[in-house]
Amino acid sequence: MSQSRLQGKLYIVGIGPGSIEHLTKKAKDALLESEYVIGNGTYLDQIADVIKNAKIIRSGMGGEVERARRAVFLSRDHVVSIISGGDANVYGMAGIVFEVAEKESDIEIEVIPGVTALSAAASLLGAPVVSDFAAVSLSDLLTPIDLIERRLKSAAQADFVIAIYNPKSKSRRQNFGWAIEIIREYRSEDTPAGIVKNATREGETVIATTIGKIMEYNDVVDMSTIVLIGNSESRLWDSRNRIITPRGYQRKYEY
Amino acid sequence: MSQSRLQGKLYIVGIGPGSIEHLTKKAKDALLESEYVIGNGTYLDQIADVIKNAKIIRSGMGGEVERARRAVFLSRDHVVSIISGGDANVYGMAGIVFEVAEKESDIEIEVIPGVTALSAAASLLGAPVVSDFAAVSLSDLLTPIDLIERRLKSAAQADFVIAIYNPKSKSRRQNFGWAIEIIREYRSEDTPAGIVKNATREGETVIATTIGKIMEYNDVVDMSTIVLIGNSESRLWDSRNRIITPRGYQRKYEY
Repeated sequence: MSQSRLQGKLYIVGIGPGSIEHLTKKAKDALLESEYVIGNGTYLDQIADVIKNAKIIRSGMGGEVERARRAVFLSRDHVVSIISGGDANVYGMAGIVFEVAEKESDIEIEVIPGVTALSAAASLLGAPVVSDFAAVSLSDLLTPIDLIERRLKSAAQADFVIAIYNPKSKSRRQNFGWAIEIIREYRSEDTPAGIVKNATREGETVIATTIGKIMEYNDVVDMSTIVLIGNSESRLWDSRNRIITPRGYQRKYEY
Repeated sequence: MSQSRLQGKLYIVGIGPGSIEHLTKKAKDALLESEYVIGNGTYLDQIADVIKNAKIIRSGMGGEVERARRAVFLSRDHVVSIISGGDANVYGMAGIVFEVAEKESDIEIEVIPGVTALSAAASLLGAPVVSDFAAVSLSDLLTPIDLIERRLKSAAQADFVIAIYNPKSKSRRQNFGWAIEIIREYRSEDTPAGIVKNATREGETVIATTIGKIMEYNDVVDMSTIVLIGNSESRLWDSRNRIITPRGYQRKYEY
């Protein structure tokens, strides 16, 4: 098949937060066009029903660099999709693929955006993220812990809605409680906080609570969880298990 | 039609950044199921090919509150979609709709996430947003200018990748230059900066430059533009008009 092509192409595809229903048409078309689809097992399972004829290359969660190298290598002669949960950029594969591809100046690359885990979590909680927000990953594998702390403090101080990615890992289970303590220094105890685990997937769990009470749900939080912290104007819609962050309209309108 | 229903339903639908190709299946299904689709003209035009039988209610850009009220009212007895460019949460319609709906405790609401303008802009620039990031809107219609300034400073100080929404409006054209000046106090002149106008739509423009040079493109920037500022590790891939923000892998791996 490669013989008939003059050149290949590399798609970096954001496949969305979980359910195949959140895949875009553009992402689906790229997957259908591809001769190879490369990803880790969880994400490949997510799109299994979409892939028809492509050869599938599975790799483990830690093997991002090796996976990116392989995708770049194959895309010299083939149409290849390397997949990313959520969006291709937001904590996704685009970075490492471009880092590897930078050395291969002649391959064609197209990045296809996807629905982020952040947007999926926000949807399930109602309307927590309608104003300025900051996203912080608590994974200190690739980011120094001091920098994570500085970002949490800055985001809390400047009243951003905060989206916490990777709140826990197997090796560093205490990062989540530590992050909540930092945020509590700048926000009142009744600031709304949402926990969304396995968004749009099996085992989906949605909890709307406050930062004063969030550690009661510490056992729920894992690597497949997004935690959203409201800003000083956010409020709980208790009977609905929802969080509402006003856009500021209340300064201009009466209801 | 309303007589045969016991109850309606309200979808708040993120329709993606521009091209209909970035619509998710779930969003499409909600639009097809709806008896009414409510939105402003630009976004309704974007999904015109998808809507089959629904009654379309157009409203102007400023009429968000009135639009939300109408959607909530109709959804007592009908299936209604109120649409939002990009995601339903991120600077989208979810907030105002929930604010109005909070008074109507019996209506069913489902929020359907979409691909954000931020993710679309990032895709077109390659891989600028793969690490922690903050989103700040420069629109001071609903947010006090002091708070916007505080958020820009905090985000710049803590080395977040920064996504600027609404960099200019008709009435406040100088906010963009002002914001860049604030960020330049904390970032070197050669920090990559990307301008993406009309992402995935007619008139799409993508410029990868630096914060030292970005004001040379001041005339390009308008309300339909997203500006992305890299962090201290971001770099330009000049020959490709792209920005790469490493995920920190370079601390762990050799290429």
